[in-house]
Amino acid sequence: MTRSTLFFVAALVGSSTALWPQPQSVTTGSKAVKISSSFDITLEGITNAPQDLLDAIESTKNAISNDKLERLVVGRGAVDADAFGQGAELNELVVSLENVSGDVRSISEEAVDAIENRAEGYTLSVPDDGSAATLTANSTLGLYRGLTTFQQLWYFWDDTVYSVEAPVQITDSPKYPYRGLMLDTARNYFPVEDIKRTLDAMSMVKINTFHWHVVDSQSFPLQIPGFLELSEKGAYTPSSVYTQEDVKDIIAYAAARGIDVLAEIDTPGHTSIIHNVFPEHIACHEKTPWATYANEPPAGQLRLASPETVNFTANLIDAAASLFQSKLFSTGGDEVNQKCYQEDPETQEQLGASGKTLEGALGDFVGATHEVLHAQGKSAVVWQEMVLDHTEVKLRNDSVILVWISSDDVKAVAQKGFRLVHAASDYFYLDCGHGGWVGDFPTGNSWCDPFKTWQKVRPYRSDTDFIFNVFTSAMLRHTPSTQPPTSLNPKLSLFLGGQQLLWTEQAGPQNLDDTVWPRAASSAEVFWSGPGGNISTALPRLHDIAFRMNKRGIDAIPLQPLYCALRPGVCDLTA
Amino acid sequence: MTRSTLFFVAALVGSSTALWPQPQSVTTGSKAVKISSSFDITLEGITNAPQDLLDAIESTKNAISNDKLERLVVGRGAVDADAFGQGAELNELVVSLENVSGDVRSISEEAVDAIENRAEGYTLSVPDDGSAATLTANSTLGLYRGLTTFQQLWYFWDDTVYSVEAPVQITDSPKYPYRGLMLDTARNYFPVEDIKRTLDAMSMVKINTFHWHVVDSQSFPLQIPGFLELSEKGAYTPSSVYTQEDVKDIIAYAAARGIDVLAEIDTPGHTSIIHNVFPEHIACHEKTPWATYANEPPAGQLRLASPETVNFTANLIDAAASLFQSKLFSTGGDEVNQKCYQEDPETQEQLGASGKTLEGALGDFVGATHEVLHAQGKSAVVWQEMVLDHTEVKLRNDSVILVWISSDDVKAVAQKGFRLVHAASDYFYLDCGHGGWVGDFPTGNSWCDPFKTWQKVRPYRSDTDFIFNVFTSAMLRHTPSTQPPTSLNPKLSLFLGGQQLLWTEQAGPQNLDDTVWPRAASSAEVFWSGPGGNISTALPRLHDIAFRMNKRGIDAIPLQPLYCALRPGVCDLTA
Repeated sequence: MTRSTLFFVAALVGSSTALWPQPQSVTTGSKAVKISSSFDITLEGITNAPQDLLDAIESTKNAISNDKLERLVVGRGAVDADAFGQGAELNELVVSLENVSGDVRSISEEAVDAIENRAEGYTLSVPDDGSAATLTANSTLGLYRGLTTFQQLWYFWDDTVYSVEAPVQITDSPKYPYRGLMLDTARNYFPVEDIKRTLDAMSMVKINTFHWHVVDSQSFPLQIPGFLELSEKGAYTPSSVYTQEDVKDIIAYAAARGIDVLAEIDTPGHTSIIHNVFPEHIACHEKTPWATYANEPPAGQLRLASPETVNFTANLIDAAASLFQSKLFSTGGDEVNQKCYQEDPETQEQLGASGKTLEGALGDFVGATHEVLHAQGKSAVVWQEMVLDHTEVKLRNDSVILVWISSDDVKAVAQKGFRLVHAASDYFYLDCGHGGWVGDFPTGNSWCDPFKTWQKVRPYRSDTDFIFNVFTSAMLRHTPSTQPPTSLNPKLSLFLGGQQLLWTEQAGPQNLDDTVWPRAASSAEVFWSGPGGNISTALPRLHDIAFRMNKRGIDAIPLQPLYCALRPGVCDLTA
Repeated sequence: MTRSTLFFVAALVGSSTALWPQPQSVTTGSKAVKISSSFDITLEGITNAPQDLLDAIESTKNAISNDKLERLVVGRGAVDADAFGQGAELNELVVSLENVSGDVRSISEEAVDAIENRAEGYTLSVPDDGSAATLTANSTLGLYRGLTTFQQLWYFWDDTVYSVEAPVQITDSPKYPYRGLMLDTARNYFPVEDIKRTLDAMSMVKINTFHWHVVDSQSFPLQIPGFLELSEKGAYTPSSVYTQEDVKDIIAYAAARGIDVLAEIDTPGHTSIIHNVFPEHIACHEKTPWATYANEPPAGQLRLASPETVNFTANLIDAAASLFQSKLFSTGGDEVNQKCYQEDPETQEQLGASGKTLEGALGDFVGATHEVLHAQGKSAVVWQEMVLDHTEVKLRNDSVILVWISSDDVKAVAQKGFRLVHAASDYFYLDCGHGGWVGDFPTGNSWCDPFKTWQKVRPYRSDTDFIFNVFTSAMLRHTPSTQPPTSLNPKLSLFLGGQQLLWTEQAGPQNLDDTVWPRAASSAEVFWSGPGGNISTALPRLHDIAFRMNKRGIDAIPLQPLYCALRPGVCDLTA
């Protein structure tokens, strides 16, 4: 794709509405329509509607009444009063499914289906004459996305819920099927209600994957059947545990909001905490200096050359993966420290006994854990080192690779013929830029400085690196040198999408919302609408979704003084 | 002062207690003492105790029962259970005043007295045998500081409130008399409860000045008698106003916590919003490109050469200053834009008529506003440009200068013979490092990059620049070339102390706590305890105060994974 094509893409997404993410196609008018006191959302031709669709309709009606968001203009709704005073009243939104035969699947079923099987598109129309608005889609998941968009059309003033941009005609579908947010709940713990609030915010901007980095070397808050001692002895406190009921609750809450939960048990590194219960399976446990044996304290890795440890890990992954409905599960695989194994007598002995090299043992270790995932019908998700650094690791064709070190690695991973998710630290790490967190390091910076601004995570025209990486890889197809991933739509790009990530060395419930929002919305738009667009026209829309998040109890931060938010363009650099 | 002297200072402040800020002198033992169920705080020899002292005693007892902070060690309070099981029970803290004759002044009276008249020292003793603890001071303000320290001695486990470091003997007093925090409530508005919560946190770390940058070009939320239209037409919303009752409430709430409220009406710049009501007094109102006429949008400055505008401004300052009890009031004076005046026909005409230069007119303008402050018995506080850049400005000797541009300017300001506050952006700006906030500026950074870490604001041994600036200026005395400031204790250093500042282009109630805390505690210790100390031993104490803030509803952020917070030193760079 050429730069000029990109400009064309950018030109397409201009709009006066404050929708976020920007729909693929939207036309608006300048007439006022107000929500009637008898407004209702009705289903047409949908018998036995799934409960989560009925719930989504109910919460949509509630959001329209309760958001009470005033339009971000000088004078707020007062400037619209004359217009909506004479506006037509909207009495009904008619929701229907097209091309759906047989039983209607629930939003929750569709949200956790294989990524290539999901349909998230929808068509939404709001006439300017008070006749019924219509929402159609080929799936209940698509209807959910459309209801989310519908909620963003309305503003509040003087007891009136209105729009001044009727008629509205939207045809929408995501550019990329994977749009994620990762949260690390191991460095610091986050109560279930914080995760649910984050899922609410994610659903507002159509993020469809919650990558849950649930455990790590510092703590083990996940309760796993058959391995209960790990959370009993590995959680920070007895109450800092995600019980099996909590996990079910989070999965159901996410699925009803169109979000799949991709859980991760990072292996073989980042596992020091397992030593609390199974010391025999951990090498270089809390060995010092930690910086020699791990990227973060404490050191400690699974003894990947031990048959017993391989068996233990496979059983652990099997039990953990069984808790989740998703067709994806991550075994991690980042930052494997060689010195830890080189200096571990047990590992050296086990390598000698098996005649394997360390890399060979790693390959067998990964193969064993992925075999149990395959047996569960799940695809393995791994960090980029598994394909770029470890030659003996033979991944299944349906594996998904998380690019995290640099956007420069996107192309290399795509060229290996694997599906990938763009989660690179130089764009998408939300924790960067707040100084070093290790102790006794007065001048320490975060390794991924600087802070990633909302502008940075939303590619703009001058950002040739990002565009190159996204589009070269997005256009790659399986070459003869690699087998097409089994059960994959050959038309599907290897570039599944991307996500932002919050590693929580310096984060907790105290700064969760304001660290993530609205920045994560910025990348969510990239992966729904596609790159391009315009920073200057995006800002007012980003203000709008941030203020709407505030109305729903999410502490998205202000990106500018309110003076600027009320005056689009006036605070631009060149204004 | 030599480096070796600094090492000596550093050596002195080592301690096993988790007190923040570090007292000047503290010795602790290793015996356990627990708070008795009949524990009380009693006054000895204080008749007609002021109500705010009685309130402070009540809130101290509440904090001791309600904090329920578990000690930050592996195993938490369980490791102390045997010790406190056998510990002596503390039944009483006896509070008394020394060297106080006649009526006892309230904490609130002492907190707002002239800075050179305040006494904040205290002596606190907690025996290990259950005999009464004692707190003595020369002032109720000193008693308040001592009660604050007393609250930090206690941990909770198994329904027991205890210490394992008895006996405790503390003799304490601040190194510098001014320890501030500035909040900008004009770029974005903060409800009164957010300010009160901030005052609570400030009092926990003995910050004694709330510098309230209440209005600016973007909004005018302060209700001022005689100028009510300014907040009616200049506030962001009708409810985004600090009424006179709100101001009284905030002043009283602060004073009862040992905090003086230094209010600022920035002039002649940063006043564009006044145009909403008094267009005749504002030059280059919202003139574009804004970057030519102001450092931030919107442009607009008071017509300093207009006799009517000088009179208006003096009356405005007079009315605003009358709302506050403090002996300090700021007229701002930063970032005066010359081009704005050069291109303003009215200003040029007024300069011509008076025969004044622009600098001369600025001098008379500042003189007039400071005259009304002097008449109210207040000292003027101004930003550094008023002494370093504007030669015709003749400040009164009792003026206080805020150094903000760079710590390199501290010495220059001190050499002018004026009292100063270290508020330099390279150490104390809490807003830096989050990217540019102006629009259409994809690669924009904050001008004061990078983010100021807690380590940065707390000078450490290698930070010779800071130490040089602090100590050279701290040791300066009035030289024959300058008159000693009127009514100043000649023994008092020109270096009053310092403060952290939160400018709120990218901040609101959503991220107030986590942007400020615990970083502002870090500088608070510098200005109470003095520079020096040790980053490695400071971190566990800083964790402790941050977790205690969390217990009191302040969203101080975690600085490390809890794993590290429970294991002092284990996550140090070289561990």
